[in-house]
Amino acid sequence: MNIYDVSEKAGVSIATVSRVLNGNPNVSEPTRQKVLNVMKEIGYTPNVFARGLGLNTMHTIGIMCADSSDPFLANAVYYLEQNLRKCGYDSFLCCTGYDLINKQKYLQLLLSKRVDAIILVGSSFLEAAKKDNSYITAAADTIPVMVINGYINHPNIYCTLCDDYQAVYDVVNRLIDQGRRDILYLYTSRSYSGLQKLSGYKNSISSNGLIIQEDLMISCPNDITQTKDILMEQQKKGLHFDAVVASEDQLAVAAVKFAKQQGLSVPDDIAIVGYNNSILSGCTDPELTSIDNHVETLCMTTISTLMRVLDGNDVPNKTTISNDIAERETTNF
Amino acid sequence: MNIYDVSEKAGVSIATVSRVLNGNPNVSEPTRQKVLNVMKEIGYTPNVFARGLGLNTMHTIGIMCADSSDPFLANAVYYLEQNLRKCGYDSFLCCTGYDLINKQKYLQLLLSKRVDAIILVGSSFLEAAKKDNSYITAAADTIPVMVINGYINHPNIYCTLCDDYQAVYDVVNRLIDQGRRDILYLYTSRSYSGLQKLSGYKNSISSNGLIIQEDLMISCPNDITQTKDILMEQQKKGLHFDAVVASEDQLAVAAVKFAKQQGLSVPDDIAIVGYNNSILSGCTDPELTSIDNHVETLCMTTISTLMRVLDGNDVPNKTTISNDIAERETTNF
Repeated sequence: MNIYDVSEKAGVSIATVSRVLNGNPNVSEPTRQKVLNVMKEIGYTPNVFARGLGLNTMHTIGIMCADSSDPFLANAVYYLEQNLRKCGYDSFLCCTGYDLINKQKYLQLLLSKRVDAIILVGSSFLEAAKKDNSYITAAADTIPVMVINGYINHPNIYCTLCDDYQAVYDVVNRLIDQGRRDILYLYTSRSYSGLQKLSGYKNSISSNGLIIQEDLMISCPNDITQTKDILMEQQKKGLHFDAVVASEDQLAVAAVKFAKQQGLSVPDDIAIVGYNNSILSGCTDPELTSIDNHVETLCMTTISTLMRVLDGNDVPNKTTISNDIAERETTNF
Repeated sequence: MNIYDVSEKAGVSIATVSRVLNGNPNVSEPTRQKVLNVMKEIGYTPNVFARGLGLNTMHTIGIMCADSSDPFLANAVYYLEQNLRKCGYDSFLCCTGYDLINKQKYLQLLLSKRVDAIILVGSSFLEAAKKDNSYITAAADTIPVMVINGYINHPNIYCTLCDDYQAVYDVVNRLIDQGRRDILYLYTSRSYSGLQKLSGYKNSISSNGLIIQEDLMISCPNDITQTKDILMEQQKKGLHFDAVVASEDQLAVAAVKFAKQQGLSVPDDIAIVGYNNSILSGCTDPELTSIDNHVETLCMTTISTLMRVLDGNDVPNKTTISNDIAERETTNF
């Protein structure tokens, strides 16, 4: 049960339902009564609009992230917290790990603490089969759920994404334009965002008339040394590549280490592109060109969307932010 | 004061004390009164033992950290969460930022959520003048407070520290033994742990009969590019140094970048030592020697101490873990 159900059943606009919930006087008394009756009838909990009502609100937002030691997620959590505080909200963070059962447990815990909304950071929350997302959609029936870098089409769930598909598509295009032919793609995850990136890679390859080679797409652990070893092993087996695009900066750092160990010249022999434009990209030598997914903008947009939702505004379900490339020394674009 | 004191002073078994606290009816009224009187007399707060008693407990621990985007803090939060979960505890993290007022506010918020204990991660919570720590000591009067990498001597506050003083002392000693004379010390913070490191540096210099030079101790922003610029500027002014010891890996990365830009050979012309043995230390070229403060051990020790406290054991107020050096390519120890 959500604001859309109330609006539909009462035969009034979402904006009118919001006004009723906000105590806005620009609603006729009969309309107000009708809306309130529908809410009662369908058992709708106005938690969603607690901010406007000043009722039932602790001014606290629950944030869930799988792993705070991941640099991208850690930065996101930082920016979310900063922006929420500016809006007068406290936040609780739960680091859930990657197991579904713990994700479910933590979501329940946050709901039991009567948070005003939930923010899910990172697409790992949506990697499971669709039915496993029911704990998220159920939560959205009571309070707004914000998703960063993942997408579920469900009422009261608001997603802010960076355009990972386009970013990888574009960068692979540029590498092909420069004459690179064997572009290795390294990735860690088949999450929503992971699959977007992978499609961007494949579609760019095939739209340039090249053949998608399965052995050029390698799933790696999120660890520099292990990934470097995988590259060494693949090369020993005869795999040839003249460029590496990685789904995370850590994997691209491994490619830089690999190139050095093999005596390859970067970017002449091998171009390397990372992802996230994290602190790591400035540490390597040569420094790493990396796709910047604007984590700060993503987080600011998420919070401003959330504030509009809590104010009872009608807000689009999906906002996409475009990425761009932070060019450093591992490419010659 | 713990459950053993109550048991001893009241002349009843631990089990009887537990039954009283649990409201178990199998205790005679005179015994119950005796136990309650002893508790009152010795000022025993039963919250501390919520775990053993199964009373008043949400099995939830509040974690506070200033900034989750700091790699050391982010890792600590991750390990704490993992270890708490193994012990059957959930956790809430609050990223407080560095302002005292927000730290105070978040501590109150966690207390209002009836967490079983508070863990303060990082010494930034203790950098303020002593009187500003009263919000922490006040919290410790109701629930256990665990401090990672900081120290307050107060009942019901349990500190787990790494021996930052000794680690810096030892590494500076080794550099001097190798004939280095102008050892630059870069640091970001004058927190408890920051001051320990700085004393380690100074005492090592002076105990080797060298003179402590104020211009060799430079306070830097926690930013690679800005710190590199500071080093360039200092060198231009004529500052000479043949080794760099940094309080954070980020600053040591800056020193590696500086050496490269100046055409200095590392470690021959200049030895460089970082701190935290973070993911950054494996990214640079040459790879960074870094003091490993064993964040995982620190966190595991904190949790095992906490569990003993919650079980009503008498636990020492301070546990110190020794650091060691992860040797890589920026030194020739």
